[in-house]
Amino acid sequence: MTLAVRYTAARTLVTGPADTRSPGPGEVELAPAYVGICGTDLHIFHGDMDARVAAPAVLGHEMSGRVVRVGPDVEGWQPGDAVTVMPLRWDGTCPACRTGHQHICQKLDFIGIDSPGAMQQRWTVPASTLVRLPESVSLDRAALVEPTAVAVHDVGRAEVRGGERVVVVGGGPVGVLIALVARAEGADVRVVELSAHRRRLAADLGLLAWDPAAADVPELVRQWTGDAGADVAFEVSGAAGGVDTAVDVLGVRGRLCLVAIHPRPREVNLHRFFWRELTLVGARLYDRADFERAVALVAEGTISAERLISRVVPLTEAPAAFEALEAGGDVMKILVDCTDETEGAVA
Amino acid sequence: MTLAVRYTAARTLVTGPADTRSPGPGEVELAPAYVGICGTDLHIFHGDMDARVAAPAVLGHEMSGRVVRVGPDVEGWQPGDAVTVMPLRWDGTCPACRTGHQHICQKLDFIGIDSPGAMQQRWTVPASTLVRLPESVSLDRAALVEPTAVAVHDVGRAEVRGGERVVVVGGGPVGVLIALVARAEGADVRVVELSAHRRRLAADLGLLAWDPAAADVPELVRQWTGDAGADVAFEVSGAAGGVDTAVDVLGVRGRLCLVAIHPRPREVNLHRFFWRELTLVGARLYDRADFERAVALVAEGTISAERLISRVVPLTEAPAAFEALEAGGDVMKILVDCTDETEGAVA
Ligand SMILES: NC(=O)c1ccc[n+]([C@@H]2O[C@H](COP(=O)([O-])OP(=O)(O)OC[C@H]3O[C@@H](n4cnc5c(N)ncnc54)[C@H](O)[C@@H]3O)[C@@H](O)[C@H]2O)c1
Ligand SMILES: NC(=O)c1ccc[n+]([C@@H]2O[C@H](COP(=O)([O-])OP(=O)(O)OC[C@H]3O[C@@H](n4cnc5c(N)ncnc54)[C@H](O)[C@@H]3O)[C@@H](O)[C@H]2O)c1
Ligand SMILES: [Zn+2]
Ligand SMILES: [Zn+2]
Repeated sequence: MTLAVRYTAARTLVTGPADTRSPGPGEVELAPAYVGICGTDLHIFHGDMDARVAAPAVLGHEMSGRVVRVGPDVEGWQPGDAVTVMPLRWDGTCPACRTGHQHICQKLDFIGIDSPGAMQQRWTVPASTLVRLPESVSLDRAALVEPTAVAVHDVGRAEVRGGERVVVVGGGPVGVLIALVARAEGADVRVVELSAHRRRLAADLGLLAWDPAAADVPELVRQWTGDAGADVAFEVSGAAGGVDTAVDVLGVRGRLCLVAIHPRPREVNLHRFFWRELTLVGARLYDRADFERAVALVAEGTISAERLISRVVPLTEAPAAFEALEAGGDVMKILVDCTDETEGAVA
Repeated sequence: MTLAVRYTAARTLVTGPADTRSPGPGEVELAPAYVGICGTDLHIFHGDMDARVAAPAVLGHEMSGRVVRVGPDVEGWQPGDAVTVMPLRWDGTCPACRTGHQHICQKLDFIGIDSPGAMQQRWTVPASTLVRLPESVSLDRAALVEPTAVAVHDVGRAEVRGGERVVVVGGGPVGVLIALVARAEGADVRVVELSAHRRRLAADLGLLAWDPAAADVPELVRQWTGDAGADVAFEVSGAAGGVDTAVDVLGVRGRLCLVAIHPRPREVNLHRFFWRELTLVGARLYDRADFERAVALVAEGTISAERLISRVVPLTEAPAAFEALEAGGDVMKILVDCTDETEGAVA
């Protein structure tokens, strides 16, 4: 039997048989290998997104796996191919799509939120969502490609250039990946993070990390930059205090890239935006080019994906993993192992 | 005797003799002709800027006039030349100046706020601040060059292109000038303004103006743009509601140019910035190219400056003009006439 984990109601995940079906035209059936749990999955788990998520719902959109079966009319893919999925389906006709911004389609189907996700042993998706993985990348590391694509997109939206001074506020998985991608672009990067564990992890990756509870971060930035302020800040904390820090550290014409989700309006120091001619740039998801670049960065080792993986748990222990992440503590990224030990063919 | 109007304390303007002196090296003495009263002058009048403004202070930075005397080492200027002043003095050494953004110098001297302004019959300024006026421009219209330069800068910061749909929130002098400059760039423009008088004035200039108290502006924009939303919004109201409107009207990848001064933090719908990948761009003042373009736009009549002038009052009646503007009502721009009737030489 192939298994799936389903969100059924707030704080409830249930393991049961997966819904499998033959892939239709243009579709591919995958065997997910590793699936990362992200902040959005946690929001769903809390019950905060019940208006959007139709329970019972299979979560998971950060994944790696292999092709199992290929539907009619699908070309270029074979059983056994290692893949990741760019989990977006757009309508192609809305104003966003018509102007080339399909990733922010006004009717976007985000697979894993709006339709069934990867936290199961069989998963049927449109072949158009597949992104090939080189055999050199282990599948556990490849589960970090999706958040890396977020980071690539964000660094691109902020137009980070070599030599620029960049502050990343929030050193969770997304923030650390942004820091690594920005550094790969030649930027000089500082991370601001509350958790000592996460600051240590950032430091292990060679990133200087500051504690905003212990230090006056804008003052540290002034010292670092000779009073000029940072060129770019990323707000990746989702906290009100994180927004303030990201605004305060920027110098004249600085760019603030807003990555975190702030469900409610936040007080923003607009006067500073006027006074220093700052720019705020919203960033959401990624496009195909971002995803392919993320595969390359993980494959070549620029992104030390393995360092971000705190633990790997079997599918049946996914509920406990959600609770551990919710409790916080010394954890970064948890992967759910979906591989089916009884079936070696596609492993 | 040459006169000056001075701010001495909250809500108090006093008329008295001007401080005149021979222009030093690199300086020029002017006879101001017309001086516009702007919102910042009103803030000073209210006493809101006492921490910055050293009373007694001569206000005024929107002006036109003629050269009276030229100091040693000043070349290219003759008594009688018609000029306006770009009222900025920068230190040239701060991080802003070093990166070419002198207009937002971290130690900017804004002449008319931080040092004596134009509301007097003699005014000595650095020759480097002078901008030549063609003789074809009447001096009353030329007093609108400075706010027009603000508008040119803002339209540039927002990168408005021909054919784009632009919403200007706040139809005061600056908002209407932005609307006119954006229209001159080929944009399709709507103005959102609470005052019926100002909406009528905008309509007289051929601008469609909406009342946000009577209409659902975001819905009007959806109808206008076939659900796409506007490409650009300008926040020129300074009101919390204006920020909301400017955010709500924007379509995917829309740009919000923040022109108004918001002294206190404002609640901003950051989720919308993420969701639609919006951009917020702060805009402050202008550079020399903006100023020269503003002279050309006023001179060629693209900016119907005369239509924005509600009244012209003599220097001795400046205090009453400040009170009238403070009271609101049916008024747009008031000019203070500084010409000295007893002295025909430079008129
Ligand atoms: N733009 C997108 O498309 C996109 C994609 C994925 C995630 N996100 C969002 O990005 C954000 C980060 O994602 P994540 O998975 O890394 O989340 P996370 O919650 O694991 O990380 C946030 C980090 O910010 C730290 N933090 C909290 N307050 C802080 C403060 N005041 N100063 C400094 N650090 C502070 C926390 O300790 C935490 O480590 C979330 O809001 C998430 O929803 C956005
Ligand atoms: N960026 C700069 O360098 C710069 C330069 C000059 C002025 N400013 C600022 O620009 C702003 C506008 O200047 P102004 O001289 O035109 O000021 P103003 O006060 O005359 O105009 C503001 C207009 O906004 C309208 N308004 C108020 N609330 C509104 C709402 N919710 N929706 C729509 N309209 C609303 C008012 O009726 C008023 O007509 C001010 O905040 C001023 O300080 C900035
Ligand atoms: Zn679409
Ligand atoms: Zn400077």
